[in-house]
Amino acid sequence: MANDRPPRPSRRGFLKAGGAAMAAGASLGAALAPQAALAKAQAQAQTHGADPQLAVEPFFGVHQSGIVTPQQSHAYVAALDLTTDKRDDVIALLRAWTDAAARLAQGGTAAALPTGEAGDSKSAPDSGDVLGLGPNGLTITFGFGPGLFTKDGKDRYGLAARRPAALVDLPRFNGDQLIPEKTGGDLFIQACANDQQVAFHAVRQLTRLAYGNATMRWGQAGFLSGPRGQTPRNLMGFKDGTNNPSTAKPQLMNEFVWARASADAPWMEGGTYTVVRRIRITLEHWDNMELGFQEQVLGRHKYSGAPIGRKNEFDPVDLKEEDKDGNPLIPENSHVRLSNQASNSGAQILRRSYSYNDGTNFYIERWPPWRQETEYDAGLIFVAHQSDPRTGFIPINERLAKFDMMNQFTTHVGSAIFAVPPGAKPGSYIGAGLFES
Amino acid sequence: MANDRPPRPSRRGFLKAGGAAMAAGASLGAALAPQAALAKAQAQAQTHGADPQLAVEPFFGVHQSGIVTPQQSHAYVAALDLTTDKRDDVIALLRAWTDAAARLAQGGTAAALPTGEAGDSKSAPDSGDVLGLGPNGLTITFGFGPGLFTKDGKDRYGLAARRPAALVDLPRFNGDQLIPEKTGGDLFIQACANDQQVAFHAVRQLTRLAYGNATMRWGQAGFLSGPRGQTPRNLMGFKDGTNNPSTAKPQLMNEFVWARASADAPWMEGGTYTVVRRIRITLEHWDNMELGFQEQVLGRHKYSGAPIGRKNEFDPVDLKEEDKDGNPLIPENSHVRLSNQASNSGAQILRRSYSYNDGTNFYIERWPPWRQETEYDAGLIFVAHQSDPRTGFIPINERLAKFDMMNQFTTHVGSAIFAVPPGAKPGSYIGAGLFES
Repeated sequence: MANDRPPRPSRRGFLKAGGAAMAAGASLGAALAPQAALAKAQAQAQTHGADPQLAVEPFFGVHQSGIVTPQQSHAYVAALDLTTDKRDDVIALLRAWTDAAARLAQGGTAAALPTGEAGDSKSAPDSGDVLGLGPNGLTITFGFGPGLFTKDGKDRYGLAARRPAALVDLPRFNGDQLIPEKTGGDLFIQACANDQQVAFHAVRQLTRLAYGNATMRWGQAGFLSGPRGQTPRNLMGFKDGTNNPSTAKPQLMNEFVWARASADAPWMEGGTYTVVRRIRITLEHWDNMELGFQEQVLGRHKYSGAPIGRKNEFDPVDLKEEDKDGNPLIPENSHVRLSNQASNSGAQILRRSYSYNDGTNFYIERWPPWRQETEYDAGLIFVAHQSDPRTGFIPINERLAKFDMMNQFTTHVGSAIFAVPPGAKPGSYIGAGLFES
Repeated sequence: MANDRPPRPSRRGFLKAGGAAMAAGASLGAALAPQAALAKAQAQAQTHGADPQLAVEPFFGVHQSGIVTPQQSHAYVAALDLTTDKRDDVIALLRAWTDAAARLAQGGTAAALPTGEAGDSKSAPDSGDVLGLGPNGLTITFGFGPGLFTKDGKDRYGLAARRPAALVDLPRFNGDQLIPEKTGGDLFIQACANDQQVAFHAVRQLTRLAYGNATMRWGQAGFLSGPRGQTPRNLMGFKDGTNNPSTAKPQLMNEFVWARASADAPWMEGGTYTVVRRIRITLEHWDNMELGFQEQVLGRHKYSGAPIGRKNEFDPVDLKEEDKDGNPLIPENSHVRLSNQASNSGAQILRRSYSYNDGTNFYIERWPPWRQETEYDAGLIFVAHQSDPRTGFIPINERLAKFDMMNQFTTHVGSAIFAVPPGAKPGSYIGAGLFES
């Protein structure tokens, strides 16, 4: 059986050959398994039961990866603030990020590693903590926050006129308890992989490449556990993502996810707009609720995932169904009803969220019963992609923020919005359309 | 190939059959794949390339699992403080924990789930977020902190005379910056699994079982990524655990890990003493160091893991070797030299640590260059098992805390020590020897 396996791509050290003039490109080539083997590994990785360490996702393409890519098991998302005032520094950073991301996605290090011999007087370009691990289906997705276009009223990089109208500043939603250190950011990196260390490693190396031009604003690890091929459950114990528009249907992705070229932002054709919300869940409180109540809050049965009154997860959500007393079967203020397409003028967003779990914190509640206790600092890194947040996340969340019964168990403590440009061609870089058209 | 696979054990709902008198035991039985299939799955899971979701680790046994068990990829460790003043409550809690842990380790829920039909007026006994996931090699390990024996000078449960002499209060070590909310605890739970949600789920259910008798003091998620069968690298990029005593050698485990029955604590025979330290690592600072310097700090080569001057990871560490100028090849204050058995009167401890990654925090440094910035809240959940901490962790760490060059990159912010009793027999419970002998 072992002989059936393709050569296994793995993160290798790419040690510099002593004295040999290995260009970065040549070094990258040397680090990769032959393309044919990679393609075979990739095909295998998409089969049930294949080794997820072997999976390889393409970095270059019409769209960036990590948007309609089937969700990997781990993520690390981060936002950085630009500190440079030079447009050329931003372009150089995006070029460096593109090159490094392409290497990382193939299972390489961010750059060739030093030998450690006398004369290596600079810090290594890669922390080395993923040596020997596979590519693990790593995707890296970059985005641009409002601060890239204007910050404190200043047009730092001559981009103010190119800010897409759809890249709005998010309004304040009912109940928001946003922490500034978990909110906003000029640049966005989302790394997703089948291994936690591989995802974090990518963001860590890319952030290092930004030293001197941008600093970390916030970073957050996430995870997703699900039986393969089934809808995963989040920490509330309910399946999350059942009613997502199908990424297998290009016409749905074109309608709801991919941005179209507009007069103000022709460079966004094939991109998307991404909203990230850090939603803390009071798990202790939720766990004390009875099952029937939890199901009323969601509007779905917990174990099957079916809409209330139905049997199967993918049974249609019929908002008109009533019980024998004439009350709606799916409660008025249930999460499923309020977020349903039919309640939102047909709007849909592509959710691609991860759970987060940052241990515990000592909290003093500011509401009855005024407890002081150690609570989980856990919840959801909500990530939603859409062609236009003005018709997507914003109206949907305005409704949810006001009426969703779930709000008594959740608090939005972080928030950000980004324009995620289209993918790059080899030789070009992410965001080239913004800077060079 | 699919036909070669054993039936896949998975976490099932064990829905109560309507009106049928299913005893808890019967329900548990129904939840399990046949023993033969489990044994086959377990054997397969220990083979390279087997599905880690299928792995099953035994809960009952001479020793608790999760100590010499090969490390799973994820962990959640937690400490609770007892709030009850009744000895019987503590015993009841340990019985409930034992029963639930045995179910969870087999891939079950903490207890049978409700049907959600009218009449279910209590909260469900399990959050349900791992339904459909496999057992994932889950191990659950329980420990007793000093506070179980005496707290604030009070012998709450009549156990003061049974406190083992080896369960010392840890001294303050040089450089300690302990945060009370991350330190100490009366009871310890360590859950390790091949899936992050499965590990956290176990602690979450067990903590719920303690409601009214104990409250969470601190909890922490950890992870470990490594090429299978090789020593994993921690976030510093170096292999961590190379020089551990081999868990495959029972005589080493008996000498260094398992506690022996002593006059003061006959009930600890087959147990161990566990030290947990939350060690924050300033990754940004570390990443800026050149490779050669990092290797001097560790005393090992980064990429191979070999001792300095050697080629292979498992080459012996020869502390007497000198370079051509007569200086020690492995520096005086390197981590490897200071922690080596030869520097510590032959002492060894079994390290079983995990990395942690809690996003970012905004820090104001209290030392030059007095930076204010967002930094990673990441590092190591150091976990060490030993037969006696007075000859194990304490003298080793006293030396490291004073002299280790690594200290400029690490800060110990959490600390705890626990007596981890031996394993339980089916029908008995963890800690029975303490309460009933």
